[in-house]
This record gives sequence, structure tokens and C-alpha cells, in this order.
Amino acid sequence: MIRIVKIGGNSIDDDAQLEHFLKAFSKIPKPKILIHGGGKMATYLANKLALKNEFKDGRRITDAASLDICTMVYAGLINKKIVSKLQAYSCNAIGLSGADGNSIISKKRSVKSIDFGWVGDIEQVNGKFIQDLLSKGLTPVFCAITHDEKGQLLNTNADSLASEISITMRQYDTVNLTFCFEKNGVLSNPSDDNSWIPQLNNTVYTELKVNEISTAGMIPKLENAFYAKQNNVERVKICHSKNAFVDSHGTEIY
Amino acid sequence: MIRIVKIGGNSIDDDAQLEHFLKAFSKIPKPKILIHGGGKMATYLANKLALKNEFKDGRRITDAASLDICTMVYAGLINKKIVSKLQAYSCNAIGLSGADGNSIISKKRSVKSIDFGWVGDIEQVNGKFIQDLLSKGLTPVFCAITHDEKGQLLNTNADSLASEISITMRQYDTVNLTFCFEKNGVLSNPSDDNSWIPQLNNTVYTELKVNEISTAGMIPKLENAFYAKQNNVERVKICHSKNAFVDSHGTEIY
Repeated sequence: MIRIVKIGGNSIDDDAQLEHFLKAFSKIPKPKILIHGGGKMATYLANKLALKNEFKDGRRITDAASLDICTMVYAGLINKKIVSKLQAYSCNAIGLSGADGNSIISKKRSVKSIDFGWVGDIEQVNGKFIQDLLSKGLTPVFCAITHDEKGQLLNTNADSLASEISITMRQYDTVNLTFCFEKNGVLSNPSDDNSWIPQLNNTVYTELKVNEISTAGMIPKLENAFYAKQNNVERVKICHSKNAFVDSHGTEIY
Repeated sequence: MIRIVKIGGNSIDDDAQLEHFLKAFSKIPKPKILIHGGGKMATYLANKLALKNEFKDGRRITDAASLDICTMVYAGLINKKIVSKLQAYSCNAIGLSGADGNSIISKKRSVKSIDFGWVGDIEQVNGKFIQDLLSKGLTPVFCAITHDEKGQLLNTNADSLASEISITMRQYDTVNLTFCFEKNGVLSNPSDDNSWIPQLNNTVYTELKVNEISTAGMIPKLENAFYAKQNNVERVKICHSKNAFVDSHGTEIY
């Protein structure tokens, strides 16, 4: 079984939370893959440099300067900090963008009502390359920067990356996918962090959507979770990063 | 024969020069390894963020904020731009810091007369890991950020990285090492770029040093070049990035 874990922004911004998570991640058995989001550092840096930060439906509009900032922060600072900390816990990690080893090929999102800029939608995951790394005992750590094979880097949604990698790796082994974020799971009452739904199927999810209980930020994550589950990923879980590897916590998608 | 090429700062700052170099590099036969320096982007960014840039004998003093900037720029922006451009030229590159795959282990430089801050001196190159990548047809692209295996990233001299990798890879194959920079080679007359010395041995180098013809910035590069040559690296050349793969150009160390 390949364990694939996605860790989101808020858990990355908090040093103590990140440290706790990485220590726990280093202890779960191999083969495993980590995918990380961006956190607030890119926004902070763009503000410091007096560049604009623009978001639409919780997704960043990525102009050329934003892409440089995202590449620096995601592929550089965050990715290498995570890798060096995992190494300290004897987890032989290797940090990757989608350009490295031609691992994740994406296509610039075509302009419809919104121009997202240098944002890529994933077209292909190079499963053989990833499987080769796993078979050498390495733990790939992906940031959500991909490329188009024509020399262009593209900013990509980290939840989509986690789903697409999971679905591709399914051809080599069974896959267990965990989305970690700052809440205890999918909540039936958004103001009560203890109201997480232990098991969520599509029917209940549709009801949550209709009743607008799932906030805007949750919908892409849940769409990705169901997409993975519907494409033969064995287990898909959404939970708090501090309970990522505790069976009794979080929302399981089924 | 493994071809190892180091490309320095000035060639990275100039987009057209970098493009020309990467196109040429993509065409030389495998196995090959690229090591890149930093360029002026880190200094530019530190200035923009109102951080201090401090140098001693041409080497950066790396405080914690500087290390974050260097990690962002070298391991993030520059490394991923190079990798994505090589991919566009059908060269299957993989960008690495020393933390990735535990490839380069260094030790924080001890404080003597100068405190260099978070700067590492290389202790060990993981040749087996690099050789595994080469045998898969991949082209490693190293930035000069390494780690201490205890969770600390360290800023490292890219010329030293090139020499140490070359010496280590010598146990797998013959090695050809080329240092590229913004001059045509080691010059007998620093104001005449056509006065490059085709072949340089230690005796002539010592004379150049005594007569202060080699400027301060050249000495660490030449020390690294002779160090590699004296440790069984077959060919060591210093030349302009635009003539990196032209035999009749540059200074050969012998």
C-alpha cells in the first residue's frame, strides 16, 4: 500500500504543527508520498514586494511575478525545509516539482470567464518515475508547481495534484490518500470542530452542498476526494494534520 | 565519461546567455550533471526586502533571513527555471538540493576570524544516489544549498560543490569538469578577454597569484579546479558559458 498525504497551507505556516506532522509522517511505513500546499508565505512576500495578490474562488490568479514568487516559496523554501526536516527524522525524502524528472505535465488553463494566469491543469502523472523513486526507498515530496514540457512552469492546485498522483499510482499498488488541513474533518456544523462526519458518501455530500454547509474552500477539496475515491483509490480521508495517522479521526470518503 | 558542468552567476542573470547555454548543454551526450550558482537575484530580493547583503572575500555572509532568500532563489526559482527549460529541450533533468535524497551533506563552517553564518562545507557526496539517477537517464541539476542531516539547510559554494561531486563520481566513471563563467578563461592580462591561457599548470598558477594577476574572485575557482585535477578528475576546464562545449576555447588545467 502506498500512503499519499497532502498537507495544506495552515499547517505549514505554523512551525510547531509542521514539526509535529513531519515527525509523525516520518514514522509511517514506506512507500509514501507527501504533497504540500503553499501557506501564507507567498502572499506575505508578494505584499512585501508591493505586488498584487489576487484570488478568485479561493484560487490564486497567477501573473508572471506571482509565478516567480510561488516557485521560490513552494519549490524552494517550503519544499527544501520539509525535505531537510524529514532527513533529520531519517526519512530519505526527495523534493520535486512537476518539471523534475518530467513528473507532472500540465496545460495552461484556457481563459474562459476568468483568466487564472500561469495556472496549470494536470494532464499526465509520470507514474513510472515516481514508482522508481519509491522502489529505491525514497519518499517523494511534491510542491504544486508543474510544467508544460515547453519550458513553462505552472502553478497548480495541490489537492488536484494529490488526487491525480493517487489515481496514477493505483496501477502499481493499493493507495491510501489523506488530505490534512486545519479542521477535524468535514463538519456537519462548521462552527463546531468536533462535529466531524466520520463517513461521507456522495449523497450526504450533495445534501451538504445544497444546504451550503460546506464552505467554498471545502468544495474543491471534496471534489478531489470523491474524484480519487471514484477512480479506485482504496481509502480517502480528510482530517486535521495533528491526527493524520490516527484511525479514529477525520472524515472517510466512501 | 560523466560530463559535469558548473554555470556561474553572470550567465544566469542574462536570459539570452542562459538560454544559449542550456540549449548547448541539452545536446551534449549523457551522462551529465549541471551545477548552478546564484546570480544577482538573491541580492536584488534581499535589497527589496530591506535585508542586508554582506560579503567577505566574495562570499556571502548568510544569516537566517539570507538563507531563506538563497533557498528560495537558488533551490526554487533558478533551479526550477533551468529544469523546465532543459525539459523543453528533451533533456530529462531533475533539480536537487543537497537535502534531496541526502545527496550532499555539509557541516556548518566553524567561526574563526569571520562568522559566515549558515554556510556549509561539504563533508560527503552521496555518489550512489547520483549514479542511480544517471543510470536511469536523468540529468541532475544541483543548486548550491546543502544540509547537515539534522534539519538545517546550509548555503554552499557552487564551485566547491562542482569539484566535490566530480571527485566522488570518479569512482563510477571518468569525469570531465567544466567551470563556466563570464570570461574566456584564465587571463594572462585581466583587461584583455582574448588573453586566455590555453593550458594552466600549478607552477604558472602560482606565478599568477604572486603577481596578483588572478583577481580575488578567481582564486577560489582555481583552487577548486586544481583540487579536482589533483584528485583524478580527467579533464578540468575553465571557460565562457557561450563556449562551454567548444574544445578550442578556455583554459585547461593540467
